[in-house]
Amino acid sequence: MALRARALYDFVSENPGEISVVENEILTLYSEDVVDGWFEGTNSRGESGLFPASYVEILRTEEGFSVQGNGTAGNIYNPTTGSEYAYQVRGDLSSESTPQRHGYPTSQGSDDDWDDDWDDNPTTTTTTTHDPSVRQHKHQPSRANSVSSRGSGGPQARSSATVGKNLNRFSTFVKSGGEAFVLGEASGLVRDCDQICVVMGQFGPEWQENPHPFTCTIDDPTKQTKFKGMKSYMSYGLMPSHTQIPVNRRYKHFDWLYARLVERFPVISVPHLPEKQATGRFEEDFICKRRKGLIWWMNHMTSHPVLSRCDVFQHFLTCSSSDEKAWKQGKRKAEKDHLVGANFFLTIVPPAAPLDLQEVESKVDGFKTFTKKMDENIVQVNVTIGEFSRKQMTGFKKEYHKVGQAFRLLGQAFELDQQVYSVKLNQAMAFTGAAYETIGDYFAEQPRQDLDPVSDLLAIYQGHLANFPDIIHVQKGALTKAKESQKDKDVPAAHDIHERCNIISCATLAEIQHFHRTRVRDFKAQMQHYLQQQISFFQRITAKLEEALHMYEQA
Amino acid sequence: MALRARALYDFVSENPGEISVVENEILTLYSEDVVDGWFEGTNSRGESGLFPASYVEILRTEEGFSVQGNGTAGNIYNPTTGSEYAYQVRGDLSSESTPQRHGYPTSQGSDDDWDDDWDDNPTTTTTTTHDPSVRQHKHQPSRANSVSSRGSGGPQARSSATVGKNLNRFSTFVKSGGEAFVLGEASGLVRDCDQICVVMGQFGPEWQENPHPFTCTIDDPTKQTKFKGMKSYMSYGLMPSHTQIPVNRRYKHFDWLYARLVERFPVISVPHLPEKQATGRFEEDFICKRRKGLIWWMNHMTSHPVLSRCDVFQHFLTCSSSDEKAWKQGKRKAEKDHLVGANFFLTIVPPAAPLDLQEVESKVDGFKTFTKKMDENIVQVNVTIGEFSRKQMTGFKKEYHKVGQAFRLLGQAFELDQQVYSVKLNQAMAFTGAAYETIGDYFAEQPRQDLDPVSDLLAIYQGHLANFPDIIHVQKGALTKAKESQKDKDVPAAHDIHERCNIISCATLAEIQHFHRTRVRDFKAQMQHYLQQQISFFQRITAKLEEALHMYEQA
Repeated sequence: MALRARALYDFVSENPGEISVVENEILTLYSEDVVDGWFEGTNSRGESGLFPASYVEILRTEEGFSVQGNGTAGNIYNPTTGSEYAYQVRGDLSSESTPQRHGYPTSQGSDDDWDDDWDDNPTTTTTTTHDPSVRQHKHQPSRANSVSSRGSGGPQARSSATVGKNLNRFSTFVKSGGEAFVLGEASGLVRDCDQICVVMGQFGPEWQENPHPFTCTIDDPTKQTKFKGMKSYMSYGLMPSHTQIPVNRRYKHFDWLYARLVERFPVISVPHLPEKQATGRFEEDFICKRRKGLIWWMNHMTSHPVLSRCDVFQHFLTCSSSDEKAWKQGKRKAEKDHLVGANFFLTIVPPAAPLDLQEVESKVDGFKTFTKKMDENIVQVNVTIGEFSRKQMTGFKKEYHKVGQAFRLLGQAFELDQQVYSVKLNQAMAFTGAAYETIGDYFAEQPRQDLDPVSDLLAIYQGHLANFPDIIHVQKGALTKAKESQKDKDVPAAHDIHERCNIISCATLAEIQHFHRTRVRDFKAQMQHYLQQQISFFQRITAKLEEALHMYEQA
Repeated sequence: MALRARALYDFVSENPGEISVVENEILTLYSEDVVDGWFEGTNSRGESGLFPASYVEILRTEEGFSVQGNGTAGNIYNPTTGSEYAYQVRGDLSSESTPQRHGYPTSQGSDDDWDDDWDDNPTTTTTTTHDPSVRQHKHQPSRANSVSSRGSGGPQARSSATVGKNLNRFSTFVKSGGEAFVLGEASGLVRDCDQICVVMGQFGPEWQENPHPFTCTIDDPTKQTKFKGMKSYMSYGLMPSHTQIPVNRRYKHFDWLYARLVERFPVISVPHLPEKQATGRFEEDFICKRRKGLIWWMNHMTSHPVLSRCDVFQHFLTCSSSDEKAWKQGKRKAEKDHLVGANFFLTIVPPAAPLDLQEVESKVDGFKTFTKKMDENIVQVNVTIGEFSRKQMTGFKKEYHKVGQAFRLLGQAFELDQQVYSVKLNQAMAFTGAAYETIGDYFAEQPRQDLDPVSDLLAIYQGHLANFPDIIHVQKGALTKAKESQKDKDVPAAHDIHERCNIISCATLAEIQHFHRTRVRDFKAQMQHYLQQQISFFQRITAKLEEALHMYEQA
C-alpha cells in the first residue's frame, strides 16, 4: 500500500522542485524520509516534487501504523518499510509547552559578540527556499490548533476531575511540559531516529550508549573581521573525530545551540557554557579561559549518550562553515523542532519492566541530598582553591623571592671580600638567590597548571548542579500525579499516568546515573592531573635546588 | 747560679707545706715552675715549702735573664734551663688595663642560673689552701703599685712629650690596653707556652695553626638538683675529642669562661654565648636553642688557633667535674692571669718581616666596610628568614591544610553517593586531603630543620661582627700612635712604637684572616645543609603526592 499523507495547511510552491498543496489534500509520499524538513511526493493534481514535512500528517491506520491519541511511548518499528523514520502520532502538542529552563538565559542577543551575520534579515526572508518553517511562518498556522483538532481532547477533561493541573502555571513541572505529558496532553510524530532508549544497567536505568562515540577538539580561537574590518569576532576551530572535517564556530553559535538543547531536553542536564563577558573579549586570558570552558563543555556534550546524538548538535558539528544555506536550513529546522518540552518525553523508550516508584523516589531523594551537599562543598572548595591560587601567585612568590634576595644580599656582602677562597662561595650564594627567585616564579605560574583546571571542572559541575533541581522537580511532579491518580482507583487514566511517570522516572534516573559516571570519570582524571602537575612542580623545585647545591661542591 | 726571688709582700703560712715570707726577703727557688700559682723554695730562715708565686719577683740579671723595662715582645728562650716556662719581665702592669669589652656583659652574676655552688663562700675562704689569690686578697697588695715601683716609669714620661695618651680614657684603644702596649707601658712574664705566633700565609698574616686540633661535642643538657631538690639547674655534657673524658658544665661556667677570654684577648673575636634568658630556662625549646647556640660557640672556640689552646679554655674542657678543688685552683689561676689586656700583646710573636702599615690600613679599612655591610645585610636576612619561617609555620601550613580540607570536603560530598564505582575515588580523595594536611605539617616543621640553623649561624656571626669595631679600633689607635711618632723623627721611641704597632696589626690581620676562613667554611657548610634539607623536604612532599596519585590508579 502506498504511503499517504494529508496536508494540514496550504503550501504555495515558490521555487523549482517544490509543489503546492492544499489543506486536507491527500498526498502520496515516495518515501517517509524527511530530508532537511521536506518530503518528496505527488499531490492530487499529479504534480511531483517537494513540500514541507511539517505541513502534512502521514496516514497510517493499517499494517502497523496507528494514529495514537494518548498512547504510551514505545518503539514502534515499521516492518513494511524497514525505514528508520517510522512515525508515531501522539496526542496533543501545545505550543505553550516549549520549555525555557529558568535560571539560565537562552536569548540569542544578550552576548556582545552575537550579531546578525547568520540570522536571517527579515527583508531577505522571501529569498530563502526549501525552508518550511519560513513558509509556515507566512501561513501562520497554529500547530496546536490543528493538532488538537485531531488529538483526543478527552483525557484532559477526564483527568481534570481527579488528577488536576497544578495551580502554579510557572512551576518547572508545568513549564518543562512534564505535567502536560503526564496528563496525556503531549502528542507528536516520533521518528525511530528520535527515540531515546533507557536500558536497565548494572546500577539501574541508564541511557543507551552512543554506538558511535566521538570526540571533538576545539582549537585556539582566531580573530576574524567582517564589514571590511569594522567588526571583529573570535572564531573557534572545531574538529569532530567522526567526520574529521573542521568547522568554525563562534561563541554565539554555541549559545544558540545551548538554547536549543535546553528547550529540547527537559530532564537532561545540558552543560552550561562558559560565562559570557561583555568587555575584554579579545584579551588573551579571557580567550584562553573561555576556550578551556568550551573544551569542558564539548567533552560533556560528546560524552552524553543523548546530547551527543541529537540532530541540532550534529548539525552544529558537521555543517560546513562555508555553506551558509545549509547552516540556515538546519537552524530553521532545529528552531521548529516539535519534540521539545512535553513531546520530548514521547521519544523516551523505557526498559520493559516498569520501575518501583517508591524506590525511584528514594533514589531521587538521595540524589537531591547529594547534589545539595556537592554544590555547597564546591562553593567552599572554590573559595579555598581561589585563595590558594592567589596566595601562590602573590604571597608564596613574594616569600620565595624575598628569601632569594636574602641569599643574594649575603652573597653581595661576601663579595666585598675579595679573598680567592671566597669567590666560589659568593657565586654559589648568588646562584642560590637566583634559584629561590625562580622557585618564587614557579609558585606564581603553578596555579594555571593545576588549580585552574580544577576550577574549570568545578565550574562545569556547578552548572550541572544548578540544572538538577529542575530535573528533580519534574520527576517529583510526575510522581505526585501518579500518587494522586492511585488514590482513586476509579480514575481511568491512572494506569496511563503511572506509565508516563515511569518514563519520566527512567529518564531522570538515567540522567542521574550518567551524571555520577561522568563525575567519577572527570574527578578521577582531574585529580590525577592535579597531582601529576603538583609532583612535577615540586620536582622542578627540587631540581633547581640540586643545581644550587651542586655549586657549593666546587666552593 | 741558684734561682733567686725577692718577696714583694708578706705571706703568712697557714697550712702544712707552706712557708711564710717577709717583704723584700730573698728566696731561693727550687725551680721556676709555677704549680697552681705556687713556687717551691727556701726562705732566709732556711724553711722550705710553698709560697705564692705572685708574691715574689724573680731576680735574673745574668746569663740570658733580663729585667726588661720596655723591651719589644720577642720569643726569649732560656737555653740554660730548657724550660718551657721561660720568663720575660716586661714593663708596667696596670690593673686598670683589664679589658672589659663594651657591648657585652661579662659579669658572673647576671644569669639567673648562676649561683654560688662553685664560687668560694667568703666564710669558707680560710679553709682553702694553696690558693695564692685568696692570700693576696687578705693582704690586699696593690699589684700596680708594687710593679710600678720596679718598672721604668721613664717611657711614659718621655713619650707623653711627643706621643701622648688619648684624652678619652674610656676609648677601647685605651681600655683594651692597646695604648699602654704601644706606648711601652706593658710588662709581664711571658712563658713560651703563652706565646702566640702570627705567621705569614698565602693570604697575609695568620694565626699559627693548632698542631693538635680537636673538637668538642655538647650533649643534651640534663636537669640536676641540689640542696635536696630545692634548687635545680641544667648541666651540659661536654666531650672533648683530645681527652675523650666527658665533663659536665653549666651555663654559668661558659659565662665565666667567656668573661676570662674577653679580658684575655683584646684583638681576638671571642664568640658570643647564646643569649641569656631569665624565664623559661627549663622549657624544651629554650634548652634546645641554647644547646644549639653552645654547639656553634664551641665549634668557633675549638677551631680558633689561639682560643682553642689557651689555658683557661683547656681547664674548662679538661678539669674533672667531680674534682672541685682542681676546678677552683684553675679558676683562681685564670682570674689572676696577668697576661690580659696590654700584656696580651707581649705574647704575640709576629712574622720576621714587618708589615707595610699603609697596606695594613687599607686592608683593615676594607674589612671595616665588609663587616658593616655584612652586619647590615644579616639584619635584613634575619628579618626575611624569620618572616619566612613564621609564614611557613602559619600561613603556608594553613593554606595546605585548607586545600587538604577542600579535597576532603569534595570527597565527603562524593561519599553520599554510594555507587560502587565511586568508592575508590572517594577513598583516593580522602587520602589526597590527608596528604595535603600532612604537607601543611611538613611546611610547619621545616624551618626547624633548615632556617633555624641558618638563623643560629647568623647569630654567632652577628656576635663576631659586634666584636670587630673594637678590634679595628685598637688597631687604628695603634696606627695613629705610629703615625704620630713618625712625624717627629726625634722621638726616641718611634722605632719601638712602630714595632709594637706592627704586632697589633699582625694580630688584627691574623684575626681577620681567621674570620674570613671560618666564615667561608661555615656559610658553605650551612648553605649546603640548608639546601640538602630543602631538597629532602620537597622530596618528602613529592613522595606524599605520589602516594596520593597512586590511589587513583585503582579508582
